Amino acid sequence: MKIVALAGGVGGAKLVDGLAQILPFEDLTVIVNTGDDFEHIGLYISPDLDTVCYTLAGIVNPETGWGRLDDTFHVLENLKQLNVSDWFRLGDRDLATHIERTRRLREGQHLSQVTRDFCVAWGVRQRIFPMSDQPVGTLVNTSEFGELTFQEYFVHLKCAPKVKGFRFNGITEALPAPGVIEAISHADAIIICPSNPWVSIDPILALTGIRSAISAKKIIAVSPILAGRAVKGPAAKMYTELGIIPSALAIAQHYDNLLSGFVLDNMDISQSNEIRVETLVTDILMINKEGRRRLAQDMLNFIHKL
Amino acid sequence: MKIVALAGGVGGAKLVDGLAQILPFEDLTVIVNTGDDFEHIGLYISPDLDTVCYTLAGIVNPETGWGRLDDTFHVLENLKQLNVSDWFRLGDRDLATHIERTRRLREGQHLSQVTRDFCVAWGVRQRIFPMSDQPVGTLVNTSEFGELTFQEYFVHLKCAPKVKGFRFNGITEALPAPGVIEAISHADAIIICPSNPWVSIDPILALTGIRSAISAKKIIAVSPILAGRAVKGPAAKMYTELGIIPSALAIAQHYDNLLSGFVLDNMDISQSNEIRVETLVTDILMINKEGRRRLAQDMLNFIHKL
Repeated sequence: MKIVALAGGVGGAKLVDGLAQILPFEDLTVIVNTGDDFEHIGLYISPDLDTVCYTLAGIVNPETGWGRLDDTFHVLENLKQLNVSDWFRLGDRDLATHIERTRRLREGQHLSQVTRDFCVAWGVRQRIFPMSDQPVGTLVNTSEFGELTFQEYFVHLKCAPKVKGFRFNGITEALPAPGVIEAISHADAIIICPSNPWVSIDPILALTGIRSAISAKKIIAVSPILAGRAVKGPAAKMYTELGIIPSALAIAQHYDNLLSGFVLDNMDISQSNEIRVETLVTDILMINKEGRRRLAQDMLNFIHKL
Repeated sequence: MKIVALAGGVGGAKLVDGLAQILPFEDLTVIVNTGDDFEHIGLYISPDLDTVCYTLAGIVNPETGWGRLDDTFHVLENLKQLNVSDWFRLGDRDLATHIERTRRLREGQHLSQVTRDFCVAWGVRQRIFPMSDQPVGTLVNTSEFGELTFQEYFVHLKCAPKVKGFRFNGITEALPAPGVIEAISHADAIIICPSNPWVSIDPILALTGIRSAISAKKIIAVSPILAGRAVKGPAAKMYTELGIIPSALAIAQHYDNLLSGFVLDNMDISQSNEIRVETLVTDILMINKEGRRRLAQDMLNFIHKL
């Protein structure tokens, strides 16, 4: 079964890792949000792409779910001495990725090409695509500060400002990265990973051609919300601030007419009846590598029966 | 006594450190060669400037004389994994300098301004100038490979190719950095540090306006060659390959009509008579911090008597 997964950062990477444990590498393609990408200390940073690649390569920091395993922060310490703000924590091992990617992009290479080369170097055999080779910038509209870039909101201000809405800067000019539409056309199913719908999945879905390409496919989403709380990140806070009660149901309704099936946690079983598509009620937490594999297997079985 | 020192890398930095131990900070200005500067892994590297600044800041690697004290190489290790060549060894702490300098230069700041800010951050109070804010590239003409960039010759090929000559690319367009000519005009003496005449000092002297600015001043050079061998680096090898016997005398003749005085080692005392200017014969090795101070003090006394 050929799967295309749409993923943001840590939650998405975990499910992708579960799928990678089961599927032959050539049957798994991941399309990763790049709306969070930004330039920082003169370097091009692509947080979700790195999280997915590092996770599949087995070199991710297991405690945070992002950044590199056993990393040090000597560059950052010394940047601080030069009065460079250190709100975005970049480890030394991680920085090598940003330095070489930035060099290549400045040379005119495309992000998808750089990602492919890096995956080869890291031994990641699945196809990992940035959603686009053109820049798309997720802007978070807030009550206190107006529009903020995503990392400013997410990392610098720790998601404290009240959210009023979102905008994806550059989205109308951006195209899906080469190979993305083709991978979708060959897929048996599209999995929307348990990533933040507003800022991780919506940017991918908003790209020209993506909705029409996936519309003919089975599409299954996994809730990133469990018992009214986000497993990680500000998804639940965002729903509340936008006047929607955060719940698995809210996620299902978010994707509504796209879905063929929906996966929610045992704790939210009571919401299952209100969801208008087939549901799989299971343990969605993925607390360890085996938990990722198990959820992935449950989903593949579910897709098979749809 | 106000001193302007012309310096390259390690040898220059040592004498500058000796002078800094004696002179009030406002009486010492250093003009540093930037002909060795180059772009590597997308970053602007200024080796001589960093060596001088790190030395004065007390954060230089004491074993190599360049790079940072107690540095690690985690970025480099991971760049290597991405198939980036690691012939130029950049430590993690050192990289912070290159990252922030590159960001600022790309923003349009001048190298002299960036250097001034970095010196403030590192607690270096003496005035350290890059010789120019415009790029000058030292090219080494070799029998085997034709013209090589300096770092290609010096670091990558370990000075193995046979030297035929030198060229300073961009030298006619480059101007002395703002403040350089003024500092010279206020100086009581110019010290040419024991740096490589061909590739560390000649680029500074070749800049428009430098020779005429220093011509009215006492100029004292220190030999970087001792008993026919360079204390460090390829200076002696270069002289030999260019058909000149490497010696303190050859250095004195190199600077010839510029000099008011010349400093050479006790081991070369026999050459003293052949040198047409006043000489100071002393221990020039500077094997430790006290040795640097002692040579600097000997020189200041020598200048005073000239």
